Amino acid sequence: MELNERQKKIIEIVKDQGPITGEHIAEQLNLTRATLRPDLAILTMSGFLDARPRVGYFYTGKTPSKLLNTKLKTMVVKDYQSIPIVVQEKVSAYDAICTMFLEDVGTLFVVDQNAFLQGVLSRKDLLRAAIGNRQLDQVPVSVIMTRMPNITVCEGEDAIVDVARLLTTRQIDGVPVVNKTEEGLEVVGRITKTTIAKAFVELSEGD
Amino acid sequence: MELNERQKKIIEIVKDQGPITGEHIAEQLNLTRATLRPDLAILTMSGFLDARPRVGYFYTGKTPSKLLNTKLKTMVVKDYQSIPIVVQEKVSAYDAICTMFLEDVGTLFVVDQNAFLQGVLSRKDLLRAAIGNRQLDQVPVSVIMTRMPNITVCEGEDAIVDVARLLTTRQIDGVPVVNKTEEGLEVVGRITKTTIAKAFVELSEGD
Repeated sequence: MELNERQKKIIEIVKDQGPITGEHIAEQLNLTRATLRPDLAILTMSGFLDARPRVGYFYTGKTPSKLLNTKLKTMVVKDYQSIPIVVQEKVSAYDAICTMFLEDVGTLFVVDQNAFLQGVLSRKDLLRAAIGNRQLDQVPVSVIMTRMPNITVCEGEDAIVDVARLLTTRQIDGVPVVNKTEEGLEVVGRITKTTIAKAFVELSEGD
Repeated sequence: MELNERQKKIIEIVKDQGPITGEHIAEQLNLTRATLRPDLAILTMSGFLDARPRVGYFYTGKTPSKLLNTKLKTMVVKDYQSIPIVVQEKVSAYDAICTMFLEDVGTLFVVDQNAFLQGVLSRKDLLRAAIGNRQLDQVPVSVIMTRMPNITVCEGEDAIVDVARLLTTRQIDGVPVVNKTEEGLEVVGRITKTTIAKAFVELSEGD
């Protein structure tokens, strides 16, 4: 939304001097309170300013992009996560690849006997193993996986957009959603670049 | 942004009867034109209604989520695409995997001698080949790639969000950005789920 010059001036005044009453804003602009009413209404409704009775107007610090940001922060991991596909540490790379195809996923999580997270396997890890010289059915996944503590994880309440930032900056395809316990990390979900693409598409579909 | 009851009523009236003058809206609500002025100003500024001199107010069809949608539509492929990594049809699967690692990409495009698009190779295609029985250096990529006309492509002016929808519904990792010519498709860029994740993160960073 585009603000007019007068509205921009009002924001500047409130930023500098807020909380400030409508009358005082009007005085500084040499206008009547009535003239300013629509502008103040627009600025309040659109979230730039807030008003408290007997106090006046103050600046919320919300620009349009910050308002979008607020919406993005409401999109959290637990509402978007997929089911995690896990394999045991002793499974072979060959069997892990078969699991990937059977489950149609690009990221597997490797767990120990107590089902706590030990590693992450991507298609890239398995492809690297495939062009190595060893037989894939002889290589346990524990040898080729990314292992704790080098694993990036997230939790149910994290914002999807923050996980998207992790995926892009660390150049990984997916992260496990975990519950942190004293004994280790329980794997409860999976967020991948596919999840992010779906969340992005959902933004355009709105309500 | 939250609309009040009166603003919602105004939108309904304009939806049904627009274009309609401010006076006529006021009449139907048993209010004066002056009372309505702030509401009409808010609805116009925020994009719900538009006004034409001597015609009146009409409904733009823009809800807040449609306004976000409008922003998303301005994010187009040519501003986000990466450099495409291409291989020739006769290259072996082994060499294609090496190219993937050297270039650090998850999707390769296969082109003919005239550099026109013939196929797409994903990590998944190569991983499938790797667990097959044949030697990877004996298999040409033309045997394992997804080939024309089954390839999803996009063009520079397409919206990123529409490409994201293609990636998720067709379950693919990346698409080539092409220039369509009479002789074939020239590959000029690459959009992957990584591109989408970056665009999503950028939304939260605003301007």
